[in-house]
Amino acid sequence: MAKVLTSQSEDFPRWYQDVVAKAQLAENGPAKGQQVIRPSGFALWERMVDELDERIKETGTENASFPLLIPESYFQREADHVEGFAPELWTVTHGGGKQLEEPLAVRPTSETVIGEYMAKWVKSYRDLPLLLNQWCNVMRYELRTRLFLRSSEFLWQEGHTVHATYEEAHAFTLRILHEVYADFMENVLALPVLRGLKTEAERFAGALNTFACEALMRDGKALQMGTSHELGQNFAKAFDIQYLGSDGKQHHGWTTSWGVSTRMVGGLIMGHGDDAGLRVPPNLAPVQAYVMVVKDSEEVHAAARKVYEELKGEGVRVKLDLRGDIAFGRRAVDAELKGYPVRIEIGPRDLKNNEATLVSRIEGTKQAVPLGMLAAAVATALDADQMALWDEALRHREAHTVDVATVEEAVEAAQTGYARLAWDSCGVEGETKAAESGVTVRVLQRADGSVPDSLDEDGLIAYLARSY
Amino acid sequence: MAKVLTSQSEDFPRWYQDVVAKAQLAENGPAKGQQVIRPSGFALWERMVDELDERIKETGTENASFPLLIPESYFQREADHVEGFAPELWTVTHGGGKQLEEPLAVRPTSETVIGEYMAKWVKSYRDLPLLLNQWCNVMRYELRTRLFLRSSEFLWQEGHTVHATYEEAHAFTLRILHEVYADFMENVLALPVLRGLKTEAERFAGALNTFACEALMRDGKALQMGTSHELGQNFAKAFDIQYLGSDGKQHHGWTTSWGVSTRMVGGLIMGHGDDAGLRVPPNLAPVQAYVMVVKDSEEVHAAARKVYEELKGEGVRVKLDLRGDIAFGRRAVDAELKGYPVRIEIGPRDLKNNEATLVSRIEGTKQAVPLGMLAAAVATALDADQMALWDEALRHREAHTVDVATVEEAVEAAQTGYARLAWDSCGVEGETKAAESGVTVRVLQRADGSVPDSLDEDGLIAYLARSY
Repeated sequence: MAKVLTSQSEDFPRWYQDVVAKAQLAENGPAKGQQVIRPSGFALWERMVDELDERIKETGTENASFPLLIPESYFQREADHVEGFAPELWTVTHGGGKQLEEPLAVRPTSETVIGEYMAKWVKSYRDLPLLLNQWCNVMRYELRTRLFLRSSEFLWQEGHTVHATYEEAHAFTLRILHEVYADFMENVLALPVLRGLKTEAERFAGALNTFACEALMRDGKALQMGTSHELGQNFAKAFDIQYLGSDGKQHHGWTTSWGVSTRMVGGLIMGHGDDAGLRVPPNLAPVQAYVMVVKDSEEVHAAARKVYEELKGEGVRVKLDLRGDIAFGRRAVDAELKGYPVRIEIGPRDLKNNEATLVSRIEGTKQAVPLGMLAAAVATALDADQMALWDEALRHREAHTVDVATVEEAVEAAQTGYARLAWDSCGVEGETKAAESGVTVRVLQRADGSVPDSLDEDGLIAYLARSY
Repeated sequence: MAKVLTSQSEDFPRWYQDVVAKAQLAENGPAKGQQVIRPSGFALWERMVDELDERIKETGTENASFPLLIPESYFQREADHVEGFAPELWTVTHGGGKQLEEPLAVRPTSETVIGEYMAKWVKSYRDLPLLLNQWCNVMRYELRTRLFLRSSEFLWQEGHTVHATYEEAHAFTLRILHEVYADFMENVLALPVLRGLKTEAERFAGALNTFACEALMRDGKALQMGTSHELGQNFAKAFDIQYLGSDGKQHHGWTTSWGVSTRMVGGLIMGHGDDAGLRVPPNLAPVQAYVMVVKDSEEVHAAARKVYEELKGEGVRVKLDLRGDIAFGRRAVDAELKGYPVRIEIGPRDLKNNEATLVSRIEGTKQAVPLGMLAAAVATALDADQMALWDEALRHREAHTVDVATVEEAVEAAQTGYARLAWDSCGVEGETKAAESGVTVRVLQRADGSVPDSLDEDGLIAYLARSY
């Protein structure tokens, strides 16, 4: 088949651009840094939303919708927050042709406006925990943008909760990290993620602690896939979120916020893609099985339709391609580009043997399967493919994680993946130094790989890497 | 039970406000005309999205995502469109603290930006039809706003398609009207809708024809629930959407656009609600059955949990209320306010008889049901409730539709519902005159109730009403 993409080894960023364009995932929007997500790309996001929304609701969190535009004065109320976000705001100054009394910011994140309403809704300990989430668009002014990875507008979910105590808020922040985010990323996206604590330099503006899931891309750079923030009482005090305790006294609540975005689509592409295009893990794939006719004939169409209906009946997400008038090779290349896990080719020769050809995008295998055994073979292939992608990604991470003893060594090792360095040997000073070479501390973990409660713990391990 | 709402007959607008506030559906946002949709309100919208999205996908339409901000110059390209929307725009003038070269409008609708991309994606007749949809937020500057019904920001879906011929575009516009919108509104929302053609005065800015679904609210005013626009070649010419036909020549495409919004939540409230609050049709209801303990006891909790699990297992959308420490009356009133179709009360007295009390919100009945027969009784009640709401709404519309012969009579009849008047006896002049009394032509139909293809047809019937 003709080579349609720059190879990863030749020029990874160019490969990424090629995949996004050729697989028709997204394009630049008309205004600076905005993006148009095309149906093939949006279908990936829709499946992410479905899977995450189910997990979010399992925690008792309910969806709601808050306004797009936030009065600029709201940002002033939390000192760190305004410092972090003011430079990134897009500002609405006019409505209906007239200048507004107060400029409104297009939300870059909604702690402030949601905080304002939480303060109205939380009266007593009986109202807690208050667990809210919204799926929406946000905007941040960015100088250098890249489709899915860094764009002025992106789609995301932002969860916002209030709890009665530090302990409950802390536990919930970690529950989201583990049970919602990491579970989804590992079991659906088939991407192993490092779960850990962010350093002060990488912390969300206004948070007490930021926890994150980081995945390693195939070029050895890390991508922050999701964050869960413990906000302490910072926003509760700034927005006066108070409740009457069972002790008869007023208390400030403890809040959290957490989000994942369309950035994960970029992570999916760079975490699994190869020189032929995307490889989408079956558990996520909007199209798990792609049934295509090799060429047109009544018999071939009828057989393909039957296979399509049978797989659909088995609960497989399947797409039918009866366009025998378009060259087979062109359609096969497109199926590879889009990363459909399995492809079922049906042509006159296959039918003569009462077979179809089953091609696994991920394992690269091609086998003739009797039509009567196709459903079972597809189920087996999908399971194997999910596992194969996970194994490959995990092996990749293991092969690109190096223990080092100094910041200098970390910077060198980070050219190809993660450098593991005792936080005591790094510290804020080492972090600043590494940053000069474009290397940052992605997360801190305990020595046993678990997530620390705070930066105050001893014996933490830092994972340093270049990142997106 | 204490009266918690203003009655409909006393003050319908006040009743509406009360329901929205007391059932915790929505609140005003911080900036002009914006709204906060709370979990109880958002759950209604989520169910609408699920049902509609399925129907939209059935038509072969795919979801995508286009940018929030549209360069103002895009609006200039279609003369009628800019005239219609320019006064309603919210404008972003600054990004990252600096003035933008060109102001960007927060999208009020996306024909322009989507047209720009359709022109890039459509090359040949093989690319047609191109069927796109997006679920998103839009903003229009409004002077008088009302939660759900008219707000500066609202959530909606907007479908945008390109077809090769007038006939295909026309047929698709009507397919959306009938198979997506009316089907959803009648079979899920249980609201009978008039399907018809809008007059020139009520047409979408830039359209050839606008078709609509209109529902009659319980106060006798009409609400436009959804519109499907035939855009002709207006946008195809303005944005240069051309394709190479099978005849080897270049042709402009024919486009359509169509949308429904969170406004339907307002229609649901005013189309079915009564003096005790919302009444949600079972086919829509996020909570179809509300299982509540009368008071706390281990036995009662265990029985309620068992009923909850059993109903859930049967596929009923069910909510469990074990808060025996909150007064029973208060929780029952809240369940009525929120309009859960059936309520299952379980207390010590019920359990002594091995029964539960099944209360139908819609039929107002209350019966003791043996626990072993509860699942069947709930299924029967839900079916009956769906039918009962539909029948009631249909009878209401029939009782509030009057045949009239003149515009004067129409204006009078429209004080309580629809006035049916031959379009020949009304015309643009009559329409203008009626508008002075706040009465408008909602839709035009053929004499047999079917939807006209255009205003050129003879013998059309106009439905006039006051409206939201």
